[in-house]
Amino acid sequence: MHWEARARAIDDEYADVDRRAAFALPAGVTYLDGNSLGAMPDAARAAIEHATSLEWGVDLIRAWNSADWLHLPQRTGDRIASLIGAAPGTVVACDSTSINLYKVMHAALRLRAERTKVLTDVDNFPTDLYIVDGVCAERRREVRAVTRDRMLAELDSSVAVLTLTHVDYRTSEMADMRALTEAAHAVGALVVWDLAHSAGAVALDVEGLDVDFAVGCGYKFLNGGPGAPAFVYVAPRHISEAPQPMEGWMGHAEPFAFSRDYVPAPDVGQFLVGTPPVLALSALHGSLSVFDGIDMRRLHGKSLAMADLFHEYAEAALVTRGFTIYSHRDAASRGSHVALAHPDGYAIVQALIARGVIGDFRRPNVLRFGFAPLYNGARDVLTLVEALIHIIDARAFDTGLGEAAVV
Amino acid sequence: MHWEARARAIDDEYADVDRRAAFALPAGVTYLDGNSLGAMPDAARAAIEHATSLEWGVDLIRAWNSADWLHLPQRTGDRIASLIGAAPGTVVACDSTSINLYKVMHAALRLRAERTKVLTDVDNFPTDLYIVDGVCAERRREVRAVTRDRMLAELDSSVAVLTLTHVDYRTSEMADMRALTEAAHAVGALVVWDLAHSAGAVALDVEGLDVDFAVGCGYKFLNGGPGAPAFVYVAPRHISEAPQPMEGWMGHAEPFAFSRDYVPAPDVGQFLVGTPPVLALSALHGSLSVFDGIDMRRLHGKSLAMADLFHEYAEAALVTRGFTIYSHRDAASRGSHVALAHPDGYAIVQALIARGVIGDFRRPNVLRFGFAPLYNGARDVLTLVEALIHIIDARAFDTGLGEAAVV
Repeated sequence: MHWEARARAIDDEYADVDRRAAFALPAGVTYLDGNSLGAMPDAARAAIEHATSLEWGVDLIRAWNSADWLHLPQRTGDRIASLIGAAPGTVVACDSTSINLYKVMHAALRLRAERTKVLTDVDNFPTDLYIVDGVCAERRREVRAVTRDRMLAELDSSVAVLTLTHVDYRTSEMADMRALTEAAHAVGALVVWDLAHSAGAVALDVEGLDVDFAVGCGYKFLNGGPGAPAFVYVAPRHISEAPQPMEGWMGHAEPFAFSRDYVPAPDVGQFLVGTPPVLALSALHGSLSVFDGIDMRRLHGKSLAMADLFHEYAEAALVTRGFTIYSHRDAASRGSHVALAHPDGYAIVQALIARGVIGDFRRPNVLRFGFAPLYNGARDVLTLVEALIHIIDARAFDTGLGEAAVV
Repeated sequence: MHWEARARAIDDEYADVDRRAAFALPAGVTYLDGNSLGAMPDAARAAIEHATSLEWGVDLIRAWNSADWLHLPQRTGDRIASLIGAAPGTVVACDSTSINLYKVMHAALRLRAERTKVLTDVDNFPTDLYIVDGVCAERRREVRAVTRDRMLAELDSSVAVLTLTHVDYRTSEMADMRALTEAAHAVGALVVWDLAHSAGAVALDVEGLDVDFAVGCGYKFLNGGPGAPAFVYVAPRHISEAPQPMEGWMGHAEPFAFSRDYVPAPDVGQFLVGTPPVLALSALHGSLSVFDGIDMRRLHGKSLAMADLFHEYAEAALVTRGFTIYSHRDAASRGSHVALAHPDGYAIVQALIARGVIGDFRRPNVLRFGFAPLYNGARDVLTLVEALIHIIDARAFDTGLGEAAVV
């Protein structure tokens, strides 16, 4: 088989980034939703079991020191830093992506007090738009939300902050982080990048590209578990002049001095607020060990090869069956998922799930499939396309289904 | 023995609230720090193991529906509601106490836009003071932090919000929630209560006392695990006019409509922000099952009897050995921990821990012991006092020790 041979060649070529054996995946399931919820590494389960039974259960309060729970946000942050091109000590794992975006947007706007606008993508992930709208209403700035192709043209000296999600959650198109960051800096604006669909999936270089602030998600391609702590990166040059607004004890320079007044920590620890969520952080910290020895360019290369195979096979077998290819075709600017559109998209996704092929659906008609090359291989691409062919040819889907929520 | 008999009588009298068998406690340890980190219920470990191995590991993304992860903040909130005298649907479990305080302080100040002051306790828990200072700086209000005895005298029509921690984290003195809430309302102010050292330890009636907002901690007397999600209560009358400032998708009326504009949920769900921390919430949700069938007045009654025994024994045996009784003596207004002061407090706490009696130390010289009557009994009080007698008489403590942080 032509497609079989292509798939085998890809999996052979990228054997160095195959970590499927490190994940617990249920039998009979082809899991293509790691862009929404990463699969469970055995290391995550082991870490949380350790943190629960041994640390909490036996060491109890002493584990703040004996297991160094106190620095778990920093230790986990350092593991993430190595995946996004950041230096140790510049990332902390904490809170949610939305809350971290709230913190850095306030911090960034304090640094550009005289400017009137925040520029963003009208197709940004909804919670990013909500948070930006809310912060701008509080700080009396205008939100200018435009399509991606208008972004460079809209950048001028009225823009305080340009904030974008790096990889589009529907099309998988990857913004040009270098060009946009440079263009923003050229007009004196700051950049806030949301790496939710990038971290753990594509090679990143936030320090090399001089990014000001970045936030991202722990439960997608970082495999930290459902609702895992998110992360925040702050360029060291901004730490001292860009306080975030939630002055909690864990962001204090000396949390246990119990002093009357808040003194912000002199490093990214300032972006912590409350007591660290130790059990959830332990799972994320454990999960990240799966990336040990992985070259992120190779990892992304595998997913791009899988996506190219998918697009070609879809072109050959799915377009004639009523699908449109919805994802971005140019591998040079694509993230790690693909998408189709079909008027019966929701029903078809349900039929796929019933057959053990798990993707997700985004309104109004988008079928989305994440390629997480740590545990997905090119053979999974064939399984997906073959299942879609079967479902259409056998009309094995129920268009009477309602839509259920998927995070 | 006089003290032995007293202890046995207390444990016998309160056998109905003894749940020690439901907790994993290491052999040889007398754990008296449940006011800082609650011990681990077996139900917590089982819940997180289920959420990890079966829900995340097998159901994967489908568990948002199949395990109802989506409503875990509300389902956990309802369990907490039943412990604090709140109606179902008025509490959500989420984020940290500090972040929740930030949300409700902003919401409360929006409701009292014309008033200039926030009144609080100068001895409030430090992170509460930091958060209140930060919110007030943003909203240009004056923070008036006074001693507790001045609180009623300071309440006047300039006060927008009175915010206090119900049980003092050092002395264990419990503020008169009814009188202070009534007095605040009488001058048109709102109240924000921090129940961090109360929830799960004392009987509460936030609805009956007409409390406006409350926040609290999941990892102390609720035993939710280190850094467990916190909670927030909002009186239903305030929901529609008191939006919180972090407009994230989980607080949206329809999170999965992915609409361009934020529309706040019409209930306490509006106080959610990002994706719920499922693993941590599962542990907390499981832990709370230990309270099934517990009468909170009886539970607090047991801890008060234990504390009375402690105070009497300390009066008889510890004052002559250089200790001062630091905790509040009147059982009618006391929480669920006790405290001593001693110039060598830190070294003595370390000596206690070395002997398996775990309490904690608070600067400058306070030895603090939590009584968590679900798993502590009056026999533990005797173990504590006997250990202190031994340590002093044998001078079995090392005053050369430095101080380490304890959360």
